Amino acid sequence: MKNFNYHTSTKILFGKNKINEIAGEILNYGKHVLITYGQGSVIKSGLLEKVKTILADNDIKVSELGGIQPNPRLESVKKGISICKENDIDFILALGGGSIIDGSKAIAAGVKYEGDVWDFYIRKAKVEDALPIGTVLTLAATGSEMNGGSVVTNDETQEKLPISSESLKPKFSVLDPTLTFSVNKYQTASGVVDIMSHVFEQYFTPDMGTELQDNIAEGILKTCINEGPIALAEPENYQARANLMWASSLALNGLTGTGKMMGDWGTHMIEHEVSAIYDLTHGVGLAILFPNWMKFVLNERNAFKFARLGRNVFGIKEEDEVLAANKTIDAIRAFFSSLDMPAKLSEVNIPEEHFKKMGEKACKFGPIGYFRRLNDVAVTEILELSK
Amino acid sequence: MKNFNYHTSTKILFGKNKINEIAGEILNYGKHVLITYGQGSVIKSGLLEKVKTILADNDIKVSELGGIQPNPRLESVKKGISICKENDIDFILALGGGSIIDGSKAIAAGVKYEGDVWDFYIRKAKVEDALPIGTVLTLAATGSEMNGGSVVTNDETQEKLPISSESLKPKFSVLDPTLTFSVNKYQTASGVVDIMSHVFEQYFTPDMGTELQDNIAEGILKTCINEGPIALAEPENYQARANLMWASSLALNGLTGTGKMMGDWGTHMIEHEVSAIYDLTHGVGLAILFPNWMKFVLNERNAFKFARLGRNVFGIKEEDEVLAANKTIDAIRAFFSSLDMPAKLSEVNIPEEHFKKMGEKACKFGPIGYFRRLNDVAVTEILELSK
Repeated sequence: MKNFNYHTSTKILFGKNKINEIAGEILNYGKHVLITYGQGSVIKSGLLEKVKTILADNDIKVSELGGIQPNPRLESVKKGISICKENDIDFILALGGGSIIDGSKAIAAGVKYEGDVWDFYIRKAKVEDALPIGTVLTLAATGSEMNGGSVVTNDETQEKLPISSESLKPKFSVLDPTLTFSVNKYQTASGVVDIMSHVFEQYFTPDMGTELQDNIAEGILKTCINEGPIALAEPENYQARANLMWASSLALNGLTGTGKMMGDWGTHMIEHEVSAIYDLTHGVGLAILFPNWMKFVLNERNAFKFARLGRNVFGIKEEDEVLAANKTIDAIRAFFSSLDMPAKLSEVNIPEEHFKKMGEKACKFGPIGYFRRLNDVAVTEILELSK
Repeated sequence: MKNFNYHTSTKILFGKNKINEIAGEILNYGKHVLITYGQGSVIKSGLLEKVKTILADNDIKVSELGGIQPNPRLESVKKGISICKENDIDFILALGGGSIIDGSKAIAAGVKYEGDVWDFYIRKAKVEDALPIGTVLTLAATGSEMNGGSVVTNDETQEKLPISSESLKPKFSVLDPTLTFSVNKYQTASGVVDIMSHVFEQYFTPDMGTELQDNIAEGILKTCINEGPIALAEPENYQARANLMWASSLALNGLTGTGKMMGDWGTHMIEHEVSAIYDLTHGVGLAILFPNWMKFVLNERNAFKFARLGRNVFGIKEEDEVLAANKTIDAIRAFFSSLDMPAKLSEVNIPEEHFKKMGEKACKFGPIGYFRRLNDVAVTEILELSK
């Protein structure tokens, strides 16, 4: 186990009607809030109105930025930064899923920076300070509600890049499972895949001696496999939605990744290249790519880790490590398929045209992945396997 | 899943030599520290000197309170409060295991309270404010390093009582596994039992729909069962010590208990009555009592939860729920015995003389336990089973 610091400073307000507690939390930071949201589902559901009423009742002034897209764009971020600067905003409240939260974090960082906010994403500058943010989560998926990560897409350069900073951790996040009742099957399934992918990225590393983290990782995966199909079949099943929502936060708040050198994140980097060009739903891209990444990186030396996962999570009995590993990968693909997730890029109308370019872009800062290092040729091969 | 707030505000500094980072953390709170410790093992190991050197190098003034006993006594606490008040202490740094930390929390609360600190423990007053504390952990067991709980013993009244408050959560805790290399087999095994007991107390509840919490709980238990025997056989096995140390914190920082109505804690209440009179090592008392509590509360309605534990953690194949439940309890007793933990109170020279009185005292605020409510007669029966 490697040395680590662990500080999950985000306060989680979990459960029905927890939204009623936000005003008290926000007033610790100021009286003028920018509410950010997406394509209007929070208008339709009444959530935006409800939040505005709560804030008005507590004399908190509100500005708004709607229309943030899935895979949040740099333009929205820049618009948000202008609004904050012009209106002396004290606090950003994100209503939505990971894209809204990620975009809001970018705004929060940009407000406190003189230069171009994109500098953070191309590693030209580091986030040192940010406006405080809070979130009201409406989709169980990215875990952004309990960590300091943010991924933003620059349409001009066709780049989708991540940053991470302590100062971008939300001060609080409201996790009310009923707010996810209206999430459709496709998005629910994508969310389940996203959660599981975050666990995989931190589970498949060459680290040894992290029994506890790996056992907890397996517990989160088992939860997804149990509760995911229930949430698809019964969208208003509170317990299933609650388990998935809390799993999304715990999957990427440091819990399963602490004590390891770093996560692998190769598959995420590849998916980012695909969705930078094609605007693919993140979880769908991961569902297509992850089992192929697994097939590609599997070898005799690392088979034991796949086999362990299969035995502990999928009940695979096979004793031979490589055979068990292959069965595990097949079980993961079968589970994703049972959620009606596509298995090939061609199913979501992504041609092989840009595979080589995607491989090169994925490796523009050098080889990716940690469980097994991948160069641009390897990335292109994984994309070929996924076509 | 019940509504909950989750805020693990303690910053964990985990790993070798992390002690070197304490000065920066402490300076956030002040320049005059009370160092608390126990019977002198931190003098022998050189830890106290090392800490004092680090603080001196950073111009942090130090006062000291040594001699805090296992099952920390109210006298030590009162002495600490006096020292803090007389010297305008800004911060308390606890060097040791759960007893030192619990005693230090009591001091921290008492300093900010006009009345008798024991008022908190007899529920006459609530902790509203406390001096900030930090810890350097030397024993993997109680989890006090990452929560707001404190248990103190009043010798005069033969009472050992718990309190819990947000403001008693340590600001930081240093978890350096090498500091537990010198912990002997008996204390190491007691620590493993203590960690597992904390998981049991939160696992055995009547709540439904907490799949995630229960899966994580099972992951922590599996870690204890894997790593405990390794730490006994090889006291300087870093990975085993590291897994146990991090498990101790995660077992009682809210992670497995959130979303449940409350933990059971019946067995802990019973053990507190035994050790209030006999000064028994906490984990040893729990090793004796827990399997007997399980046998006593097991019935046809709740057998499924024991059976689930047995199947997921001990690999029990039995299909009948009650039979599987009994096998699970036997497996737990067998595991504790494999750690050389006693199975009977008579083995630690505790006679049956006070069983009735212990039963009455355990229930002085009413019946205890939540998985199954226990009155004084039931508690006495569990003690009889354990004699």
